[in-house]
Amino acid sequence: MTTPDRIWTAAMVVIGDEILSGRTHDKNIAQVASWLQVQGIRLHEVRVVSDDMDAIVEAVNALRVKHDYLFTTGGIGPTHDDITVDAVAQALGVPVVIHPEARAILEDYYKDRDGGLTEARLRMARVPEGADLIPNRMSAAPGIKAGNVHLMAGVPSITAQMLDALTGTLEGGAPLLSETIGGWIKESEVADVLREVEKAHEGAQIGSYPFFREGKTGANFVIRSTDRETLDSCVDTLCEALGELGLDFTPGGI
Amino acid sequence: MTTPDRIWTAAMVVIGDEILSGRTHDKNIAQVASWLQVQGIRLHEVRVVSDDMDAIVEAVNALRVKHDYLFTTGGIGPTHDDITVDAVAQALGVPVVIHPEARAILEDYYKDRDGGLTEARLRMARVPEGADLIPNRMSAAPGIKAGNVHLMAGVPSITAQMLDALTGTLEGGAPLLSETIGGWIKESEVADVLREVEKAHEGAQIGSYPFFREGKTGANFVIRSTDRETLDSCVDTLCEALGELGLDFTPGGI
Repeated sequence: MTTPDRIWTAAMVVIGDEILSGRTHDKNIAQVASWLQVQGIRLHEVRVVSDDMDAIVEAVNALRVKHDYLFTTGGIGPTHDDITVDAVAQALGVPVVIHPEARAILEDYYKDRDGGLTEARLRMARVPEGADLIPNRMSAAPGIKAGNVHLMAGVPSITAQMLDALTGTLEGGAPLLSETIGGWIKESEVADVLREVEKAHEGAQIGSYPFFREGKTGANFVIRSTDRETLDSCVDTLCEALGELGLDFTPGGI
Repeated sequence: MTTPDRIWTAAMVVIGDEILSGRTHDKNIAQVASWLQVQGIRLHEVRVVSDDMDAIVEAVNALRVKHDYLFTTGGIGPTHDDITVDAVAQALGVPVVIHPEARAILEDYYKDRDGGLTEARLRMARVPEGADLIPNRMSAAPGIKAGNVHLMAGVPSITAQMLDALTGTLEGGAPLLSETIGGWIKESEVADVLREVEKAHEGAQIGSYPFFREGKTGANFVIRSTDRETLDSCVDTLCEALGELGLDFTPGGI
């Protein structure tokens, strides 16, 4: 499903004290961002908030109306610090209910497992009223789609499963294409070139991403456009300009 | 510098299309968060925004008044997509000026380097009027402290240098202490225990962080408090409770 002339945007709310304490490195932003690119949807902004009802409600409400899609990660498990379902329900102004299909999935999953479907585990069948489930083949607990809000797991491998289940189901536009050129180039040497080449190619953006590696300075230049011809022309012009400066570079980046 | 009775908070704005495209995994959130913990400052929220003037200004203004400190990462290099200084200046309502000391540092650094101090490189001496510099021993370009806003680099190793230079200079409160207990435990088995133990220890929080590894389910439980006695007592009670359930666990987490 693509609508090429319209830009579809998404935002993301990453929920979790473990990210804000520095204990856990977030892996979901890059994962969701890459997946959205392929769906023709641009990730425009992300907020990381703590396991706090007011903070989640505020972020969800600020972002769900500004964008076509909102994704949350984290806080949908069985423990007391998992409050994302309650927060999204509050943001949407609907009650929390037990989803019959989610309950059935959990009943089946815990049938022969120690302790059965306890009250704590049944928490994972709670959804904002009117929500649909997002299947999760890895564990029993499903993701949730409530309006344009998609509640995903905090564990990246489970979120990967949920994204897989959503693939192709969200309407998007033309995917943003990109090419990378990199080299042991100081970005300050080519700042003028980058600006001029970008200016000469409407509809293309050039991002400059410097790095230090092996004690040396380098940079990757990422050229982006939704139009293949514009992209190729911008890449060609940039390569020529770098060549004229006598700089070595590698297509694909280093 | 510590003021134990007051909670000092910080927020962070991560600037960069490369994070929102999924191309680059952010490493600065965890780095800044861990550093803040040691300074007795809590990271309360993070926003990731694109290289867009309005988006940066909005995020900076929303967060700098809500928190004691604001940190930005990214967008302070010499290229056309580096607009953080301009955005922060606009947010603060001050003009952008060349900082004489920054210019001197850059002049010295590029003295014997190819091309000398070009106009592009001089961009890295631009600061919001009234700002101070944050030293950076790794490359010449300094970080910037404008009011309570701290502009750090996008490259994590450079931001590390800047944080090092700031260590001990920001007033903070009592650091949040934490202990971790982990095991091959399904968090749904112990959800009730976690809730009850946390409830019994005012001033302590228990976070539950499940994971899948080697095909098995496990979880780490992180207990946090600013008070050592409360923390130890909460940890002891939790260990006892897990022991009573016949569950194996490892202090320090797995």
